[in-house]
Amino acid sequence: MDETEDVPKDFIKLKSAKLSVDEVSELVVSPYCGAVSLFIGTTRNNFEGKKVIHLEYEAYTSMAETEIKKICRDVRQKWPSVKHIAVYHRLGVVPITEASVIIAVSSPHRAESLEAVMYCINTLKASVPIWKKPRKPTVSWAASKAGWSAGHRSYSAPLLCSDEIPHGLLHPFLESPTKEGCGPVGMHPEDVH
Amino acid sequence: MDETEDVPKDFIKLKSAKLSVDEVSELVVSPYCGAVSLFIGTTRNNFEGKKVIHLEYEAYTSMAETEIKKICRDVRQKWPSVKHIAVYHRLGVVPITEASVIIAVSSPHRAESLEAVMYCINTLKASVPIWKKPRKPTVSWAASKAGWSAGHRSYSAPLLCSDEIPHGLLHPFLESPTKEGCGPVGMHPEDVH
Repeated sequence: MDETEDVPKDFIKLKSAKLSVDEVSELVVSPYCGAVSLFIGTTRNNFEGKKVIHLEYEAYTSMAETEIKKICRDVRQKWPSVKHIAVYHRLGVVPITEASVIIAVSSPHRAESLEAVMYCINTLKASVPIWKKPRKPTVSWAASKAGWSAGHRSYSAPLLCSDEIPHGLLHPFLESPTKEGCGPVGMHPEDVH
Repeated sequence: MDETEDVPKDFIKLKSAKLSVDEVSELVVSPYCGAVSLFIGTTRNNFEGKKVIHLEYEAYTSMAETEIKKICRDVRQKWPSVKHIAVYHRLGVVPITEASVIIAVSSPHRAESLEAVMYCINTLKASVPIWKKPRKPTVSWAASKAGWSAGHRSYSAPLLCSDEIPHGLLHPFLESPTKEGCGPVGMHPEDVH
């Protein structure tokens, strides 16, 4: 194979099915590269000191894909030797220990792929409109309603204050419950913590 | 599960069978962690401008394992929140695009696992007695012998001048051909490039 046949590619996918580390890492492997670096964001069982039973992700898909493409372009400017980039994000419910996001980058030498993966996940968390919502163990409606009434934080807070699993910026749709499914789900008292 | 039941573990293996990214990443997943970072060193098809058909790895196994354990201890001192660490290295022939090394680290938040993986691979390359040998496409014995006789670089050079795939420091056994298989393999004229 001539290197011109193995042109740099970006693989971007948002999907509700379980993510496979093997599948995503295989996408970026190249005979011209000696390094593949990956970051996997997984659901952990606690959030700000509270037990979590799963996370739930929502995205403004087309804008998220556009933002991820922009991240890929930035990576190629910063690290021109990077070969392939894969960014896979799961939407919907993600159980404890399963992957919500997998980022993989290949390059001939290791420094570029390691630095690029770090840049990708940091930038994705800062700029891509994907939101996560921790789910606490179920409590009674009365108890959760009491919590809501007692002045706990607003809906948007638990969606936006993550620090270990990617999420995006506050998108206007979160402020406006006109996006189908977003407002009603978010306003359920069990979302407050 | 109580966190005291998920005690930090180090998984270290040197083996001749093909490495699996899924298997190694699964080892470090923890319900208490939101991040898994990985580095995969793969065989690329060129080395210092010359075509390579595969790489071949040799290790002084017990010393390599001891050195890798030391790296794990260092990681836990530098990043105390790191949960599990896996360092798998393949020995023998590693074909183009296949993994020679996989390092995986989990932590509650992403920065620690990303930094720890970078530290692990850099330190492994600098201090662990695992050597790699690029294999060029076969040439005739006469041609390669002529190359050897013409004063090409010594045996140790191609083993030690890698920069994208892990290798260890110069071990005394390389200087002394008493280690079974090391001297004779290395001294074959085809090793010179």
